[in-house]
Amino acid sequence: MTTDYPTIRMKPKAEARAIRHGFPWVYDNELVTDRRTRGIEAGALAILEDAERRPIALVTVNAGSRIMARVIDRQLDAVVDQSWFEARLTHALAHRERLFDQPYYRLVHAEADGLPGVVIDRFGDVAVVQPNAAWAEVRFDILAAALVKVTGVSTVIKNGTGRARSLEGLDEETVVAIGAAPKAALQVPMNGAVYMADVMGGQKTGIFYDQRPNHAFAKGLAKDAKVLDVFSHVGGFGLAMLAGGAASALSVDGSAAALELAEAGAAASGCADRFATRKGDAFDVLEALREEGEMFDVVICDPPAFAPSKQALEAGLRAYERIARLATPLVKEGGYLGLCSCSHAADLTRFRGACTRGIGRAGRYGQLVYTGYAGADHPLLPQLAESGYLKALFYRV
Amino acid sequence: MTTDYPTIRMKPKAEARAIRHGFPWVYDNELVTDRRTRGIEAGALAILEDAERRPIALVTVNAGSRIMARVIDRQLDAVVDQSWFEARLTHALAHRERLFDQPYYRLVHAEADGLPGVVIDRFGDVAVVQPNAAWAEVRFDILAAALVKVTGVSTVIKNGTGRARSLEGLDEETVVAIGAAPKAALQVPMNGAVYMADVMGGQKTGIFYDQRPNHAFAKGLAKDAKVLDVFSHVGGFGLAMLAGGAASALSVDGSAAALELAEAGAAASGCADRFATRKGDAFDVLEALREEGEMFDVVICDPPAFAPSKQALEAGLRAYERIARLATPLVKEGGYLGLCSCSHAADLTRFRGACTRGIGRAGRYGQLVYTGYAGADHPLLPQLAESGYLKALFYRV
Repeated sequence: MTTDYPTIRMKPKAEARAIRHGFPWVYDNELVTDRRTRGIEAGALAILEDAERRPIALVTVNAGSRIMARVIDRQLDAVVDQSWFEARLTHALAHRERLFDQPYYRLVHAEADGLPGVVIDRFGDVAVVQPNAAWAEVRFDILAAALVKVTGVSTVIKNGTGRARSLEGLDEETVVAIGAAPKAALQVPMNGAVYMADVMGGQKTGIFYDQRPNHAFAKGLAKDAKVLDVFSHVGGFGLAMLAGGAASALSVDGSAAALELAEAGAAASGCADRFATRKGDAFDVLEALREEGEMFDVVICDPPAFAPSKQALEAGLRAYERIARLATPLVKEGGYLGLCSCSHAADLTRFRGACTRGIGRAGRYGQLVYTGYAGADHPLLPQLAESGYLKALFYRV
Repeated sequence: MTTDYPTIRMKPKAEARAIRHGFPWVYDNELVTDRRTRGIEAGALAILEDAERRPIALVTVNAGSRIMARVIDRQLDAVVDQSWFEARLTHALAHRERLFDQPYYRLVHAEADGLPGVVIDRFGDVAVVQPNAAWAEVRFDILAAALVKVTGVSTVIKNGTGRARSLEGLDEETVVAIGAAPKAALQVPMNGAVYMADVMGGQKTGIFYDQRPNHAFAKGLAKDAKVLDVFSHVGGFGLAMLAGGAASALSVDGSAAALELAEAGAAASGCADRFATRKGDAFDVLEALREEGEMFDVVICDPPAFAPSKQALEAGLRAYERIARLATPLVKEGGYLGLCSCSHAADLTRFRGACTRGIGRAGRYGQLVYTGYAGADHPLLPQLAESGYLKALFYRV
């Protein structure tokens, strides 16, 4: 490696000030993209300059991506070698070790942890890495080596699924990079329950750590409650609430594989006798439960992103409203309705509006008792905080 | 009492639909205010009609207030007698008993608990009531009787301080309405610490229950940490963090009385040996600590409302920025900075912007690891949720 980096230059009207203040991305239309710039290899490093040729930051370049440059270091002569990764990972690890007693967490949350586009979830001795940007893809080997050195994990899995990679022009592939593939689903302790994570074949990295504080809040409502957990995945809210003393939990999901993991989690948590599952389309099951006359103390709906993009926003908000309208009649008077969104495009105000409308259209009024976000192992750059994707609202209806 | 209520009518362009959808307030400029309406006694009940004389809701009227009508019941023939209060209080109590093991909480949070303008904090056998609206003032006796019947408290204190009352044209007075005044400060268990509340002479009702989940988050960062708690009041963040294993906590406040209560709380919590206080202006103390070369693992600043009104917003945001700028240098590299706002006028985006600028002006970058609000015993009407006043941000800097 060398620090003799090429330079790329921002256009005169581009927001160099925002980059200086911590914004991490430079879009293609903000850069002077001459042939030399377009010729920079995907993932290579460069010095970002403002229009007056004053250097701003060390960036990684991907001429094939809408986000053409990502700030990687404020120090212009930084060398991105294994020890550079080790320093970033050590800083990230210190935060998680302060937060959690056990090594089950999101270790790296991309930009906010100084590793743009890189997500690392840790499951004890196993780490699952999503290198969702070209610069990390081409440096995967030293990243993985640094990860082993800093955390002591024995297995590193490279998970190359997800929409972000195609935007960067990267292939899909999930491989064991270091160590041996786990022979079975991994046990993940969280909020007093045990979850099962399929790190090789499951959704995303196998489990969603981001909901941990929202699961914890729901757990606080759980005592003796009859719980319905819709879009349950591997049992997220339901198992936490059983650990909190719920009388029963019914998990609904469209994936038989997810429900099998949820059942295994209930068994591992010692609450299989209070746990049941129902496979089906969530909207259909909500309507069917109403026809069956079922009522619950707590109903939670944690759907996939209905509004993944700005184009999908209006349809997504209607879907959130419909979920709220269908779920409300299943909640006993004075009971609780938890509604979650993991849509970037639906901000808190819009999402809350859709939920409140849905509750109103079901003929009920709600008190809003809780607004929660992703857990502290999912830090945000304050400059990107508006895009905090996960929102969890609990209403008493 | 009778259900032969007078009527008041909304103007043709007023938002009757918002009221039907759950908004609880009608402003003076939205009502046809003829002599008959202006003659309605403050606190009396009336039927609110839309411009086409269709009834909307039962409201309380205060012709002397900018909020001239407050929705009190969607049932038009409701009788607001002691059993009506008992029903509202029973509903409110069920929520708190689900949330908390011990009877220390905000029992009634005004509009969202169906008692507009009324705040009730419970300290075991003692309840402190703020009847900050005329309708509740004139019905205080049956409210207090209902409170005793539903909760079993032996003492009811009427706390008539605060800005809200003067807007309603009510006098200031704090009196023991039922039972005997506590002879000493009350012990309040919260987050594993014990706080001392002076319910007769302290700020607001004597303690701030609203910060409970944010104290809990801070407690999770506490292990072995050296903590600075600025604007500490009776020891809010500091005592919770000592209960979470902090090595030391220094509480700074301008009130000697508050610091005395904090010291008594530290003694009652069994952590007086790790607790210290420093009386002084927060800005001055932050600068002095820097000159003294002090550094902390966690610094928290929970100032009074710097932006209590829209007029005060710009000055308030500058004050929040200044706090962040002065506090940041006191945080060790990789440590945490907690910044709180209880200003209605400063919404989350503005407050976060001010904090992020302050950190930047101190020459540091921050990761935003936590955004918290008031606890679940402070429910909100979704229609008023934008005004959720309390915001707590934790940055890692």
